[in-house]
Amino acid sequence: MAGVDGADERYVVGVDYGTLSGRALVVRVRDGAEVGTAVHAYRHGVIETLLPDGGPALPPDWALQDPEDYRDVLRRAVPAALADAGVDPSRVIGIGTDFTACTVLPTLADGTPLCEVPELRPRPHAWVKLWKHHAAQPHADRINALAHERGEPWIGRYGGKISAEWQFAKGLQILEEDPEIYHRAERFVEAADWIVWQLCDEETRNVCTAGYKGIRQDGRYPSTDYLSALHPAFADFVSKLDGRLLPLGDRAGSLSARAAAWTGLPVGIAVAVGNVDAHVTVAAARALDPGRLVAIMGTSTCHVVNGAHPAEVPGMCGVVDGGISAGAWGYEAGQSAVGDIFGWFVEHAAPAGTASHERLTELAASQPVGAHGLIALDWWNGNRSLLVNHDLSGVIVGLTLATRPQDVYRALLESTAFGTRMIIEAFVGAGVPVRDLVVAGGLTSNRLLMQIYADVTNRPLGIIGSAQGPALGSAIHAAVAAGAYPDVHRASAVMGRVDEGAYRPDPDNVRAYDALYAEYRTLHDHFGRGGDDVLLRLRAIRNAAAAAPGEAVLEVVG
Amino acid sequence: MAGVDGADERYVVGVDYGTLSGRALVVRVRDGAEVGTAVHAYRHGVIETLLPDGGPALPPDWALQDPEDYRDVLRRAVPAALADAGVDPSRVIGIGTDFTACTVLPTLADGTPLCEVPELRPRPHAWVKLWKHHAAQPHADRINALAHERGEPWIGRYGGKISAEWQFAKGLQILEEDPEIYHRAERFVEAADWIVWQLCDEETRNVCTAGYKGIRQDGRYPSTDYLSALHPAFADFVSKLDGRLLPLGDRAGSLSARAAAWTGLPVGIAVAVGNVDAHVTVAAARALDPGRLVAIMGTSTCHVVNGAHPAEVPGMCGVVDGGISAGAWGYEAGQSAVGDIFGWFVEHAAPAGTASHERLTELAASQPVGAHGLIALDWWNGNRSLLVNHDLSGVIVGLTLATRPQDVYRALLESTAFGTRMIIEAFVGAGVPVRDLVVAGGLTSNRLLMQIYADVTNRPLGIIGSAQGPALGSAIHAAVAAGAYPDVHRASAVMGRVDEGAYRPDPDNVRAYDALYAEYRTLHDHFGRGGDDVLLRLRAIRNAAAAAPGEAVLEVVG
Repeated sequence: MAGVDGADERYVVGVDYGTLSGRALVVRVRDGAEVGTAVHAYRHGVIETLLPDGGPALPPDWALQDPEDYRDVLRRAVPAALADAGVDPSRVIGIGTDFTACTVLPTLADGTPLCEVPELRPRPHAWVKLWKHHAAQPHADRINALAHERGEPWIGRYGGKISAEWQFAKGLQILEEDPEIYHRAERFVEAADWIVWQLCDEETRNVCTAGYKGIRQDGRYPSTDYLSALHPAFADFVSKLDGRLLPLGDRAGSLSARAAAWTGLPVGIAVAVGNVDAHVTVAAARALDPGRLVAIMGTSTCHVVNGAHPAEVPGMCGVVDGGISAGAWGYEAGQSAVGDIFGWFVEHAAPAGTASHERLTELAASQPVGAHGLIALDWWNGNRSLLVNHDLSGVIVGLTLATRPQDVYRALLESTAFGTRMIIEAFVGAGVPVRDLVVAGGLTSNRLLMQIYADVTNRPLGIIGSAQGPALGSAIHAAVAAGAYPDVHRASAVMGRVDEGAYRPDPDNVRAYDALYAEYRTLHDHFGRGGDDVLLRLRAIRNAAAAAPGEAVLEVVG
Repeated sequence: MAGVDGADERYVVGVDYGTLSGRALVVRVRDGAEVGTAVHAYRHGVIETLLPDGGPALPPDWALQDPEDYRDVLRRAVPAALADAGVDPSRVIGIGTDFTACTVLPTLADGTPLCEVPELRPRPHAWVKLWKHHAAQPHADRINALAHERGEPWIGRYGGKISAEWQFAKGLQILEEDPEIYHRAERFVEAADWIVWQLCDEETRNVCTAGYKGIRQDGRYPSTDYLSALHPAFADFVSKLDGRLLPLGDRAGSLSARAAAWTGLPVGIAVAVGNVDAHVTVAAARALDPGRLVAIMGTSTCHVVNGAHPAEVPGMCGVVDGGISAGAWGYEAGQSAVGDIFGWFVEHAAPAGTASHERLTELAASQPVGAHGLIALDWWNGNRSLLVNHDLSGVIVGLTLATRPQDVYRALLESTAFGTRMIIEAFVGAGVPVRDLVVAGGLTSNRLLMQIYADVTNRPLGIIGSAQGPALGSAIHAAVAAGAYPDVHRASAVMGRVDEGAYRPDPDNVRAYDALYAEYRTLHDHFGRGGDDVLLRLRAIRNAAAAAPGEAVLEVVG
């Protein structure tokens, strides 16, 4: 393909680290054209039951990863993408990366993951905690209770709740469950920053994860007083986090000889500051202007939108100055499971004959709104926004003997759209405008799902013009880091792509969904806001039963 | 087999009319030994969408049958059972029958079903309305509202609610939706009595269905005043119902020449009064003593228990003097779907590899109580007791990405046990003792399910000693009608069979289920008793969407 480009054509590489694999994308700097790509699936995927080299069985709700799998993406996917592009590596001027978050690991001072220290390898807390590691809920509960009790100024910036997925909850879990690992950890680092450290041999921290996942607000982390009150030994946690903090799009450093050998890229080219998959996608979708909510819909959904001013939105994930792009307040919300719910249904709840997304979607598309008589609460993996509680679980109401698989499937599609509407209404209610949606991610290919989102939210819905939004976004940041564009806004305008208003709300469907959404909201508040805490009690019963079969439930009951 | 019996051995035939087929059983009078049996599946099964010979499409919630299918059981299953037994028909001294109820049909004065009058054949209301025809809910609602408004004395005998399944609701639906059919119907008769009419050419009515399904209490039907207030033309409804009323176990008449030709049985032998499948089973299970609740568990469950005194139990189906056996007050309650829910799950919600009851039960049995984290409300076909509302629907709470098919399956098994416990607690709370359970029906073969029922209800659970409880019960009634025993109690003691205390509650499981049952009850009351009427609204939305796609939901919303 390089043959059609001029001899002076320049390229950047974006690398997107997902939950199960990493993707490299080679992008032309001049116009954002995607000229080559390759994927590498993590050898160990998500580690949920047993560590690769032995150790105790993992309890419920754990989710770990192996950092060597991340290096393998550099070794395999980057050279393969270059080969696919037919681009001479010497023309590549920068590399950018994005990661799932909060995916975080304890390391030595030189960045060596503790799980790579031989004697610590059998210790679960030495490994990378993936974003969907949900076993730190009790720690998050205490973090939140104490923050409200003390009136900590930062708690309102996170909708009133710090998630169990984030750095402080995961760090506190390590301290209390395996204090030796906590103390051996000289650094506690987001995988987003760790991979940049691996690329350029310099430790940096990005403002995005520091703000959204690390409770850094107005230039400060939580106070030592507060941390000591949580646990006396937790007072030094910020010292493990703090470091050279850089805005998104900046150059973190230059590609090291070691990383150049892994990737086949030239030594010394620009390495962009670490970034998060959702946030980096906004640039790829040309959606940096305030009021355009970007929903990155895959296994889970992340919602990001720029606002001109700071506001405190109850129950959302966070607001961070420059968290999406410099010069704006970046708001983030999320749904813990979206595509994961549809995948669960196909794998575990659909009979032979209908067990594919294509077949279920086809069958579901032919029914009028409301004809299945069902409402679901989309909490199969807890609720990230607005309730910020990973112990919540899914609900289906309205089942009958006439209910067919496509009915439940459609109700699940709709439930995630209702969840997104709850988030949009929370933003709008707090003074953060949401005028339209731009959707990115693998679920954009489901036309029924996209139309449902337009109808349920009653907003025009654009589709990102790239199948590799995060990787394209990372490439855009690489171009800025390399100095090819003066800032991310201008790079986005040239290199990003969006199909504006690809879906328009249908007025009849909008009215029909208003009635169903009202039911969803009532159920949401009943099960999520204290009307009946049955979901939380069932989770406690389940965990007790799993931990001590036979006596399990008695403890909970007694 | 007859070879082993003496030349003076006598037999009776019991015929059990189920939802999908009829079964004949040849039984030895001396000891109740079952010596031969045969089944005939109804040619038209349950008619839910289209009439056999054309006519309009049936609306949702309809369920009809063809009376000719009932005659075919006499023609085919009875001779086949005799042949299977190797019994000379001349030794048969009586025939007894039982039927699903309230299964009811309009006929001419001679018993000819209106659907067999050629010009009425394309008219849906001319056909047999099966027990699970649920389209008369609006009519039942008006029957109940007016009864409470006027303080009708009989309403308390039915837990405060007449079911949409029963004679008056179904009759009122005919009158209002097809008045010509209503007026052409000279008789309106339970299938239980119609089949007896077919056997002996004499119209009789049994006290059981007259009381439970026909609102006959203290020797009277509802007053003409009341019926006129429902609808002026409904005043004559009782005249279509009333007839020669006989207690259970009596002789209705003698086998006619026509029926003798159908069955191969001798002309003139005793024909027992019509009976209901659940009620007749009590005699087969030797459970006529007060305090022994018999649960007949198949597609749905019927609970029947004798009590020494009359009591008004909120939300149960009814109490009838002699409704199970002469000399006691017979109480009835029910769950609209039980095996049907499990069957729905296997057919429509279980993936390949687990889609069998055997496999799901095996997988579900290995988990401790509470380990799946789920609670279901067992309302897939509405709620017959205690809520008496067929517009309710099923609920599952607690679903996660880790939920497996066997988890949901077990939660469904448990949900029906919780439903039974609600019924037992209502009986006990109203002063009707329930000391133990005896279970009959096809679901007795699932040992996990039986243990769950013993644990959830905390009562010893016996299993009927016959796989054909209703047919054996009918045979017992035939023996009494033929004069072989002085009454049903004594015939039951000799001919009935039960495995006493086959399942004993496990104390640990009892305590664990107490906690889950408390959650079930809270959900039950929330969704069933006005906390949130979302299930009823979803039903209305569903029906409107099905009736007028596109505009459907707008009507409901507006």
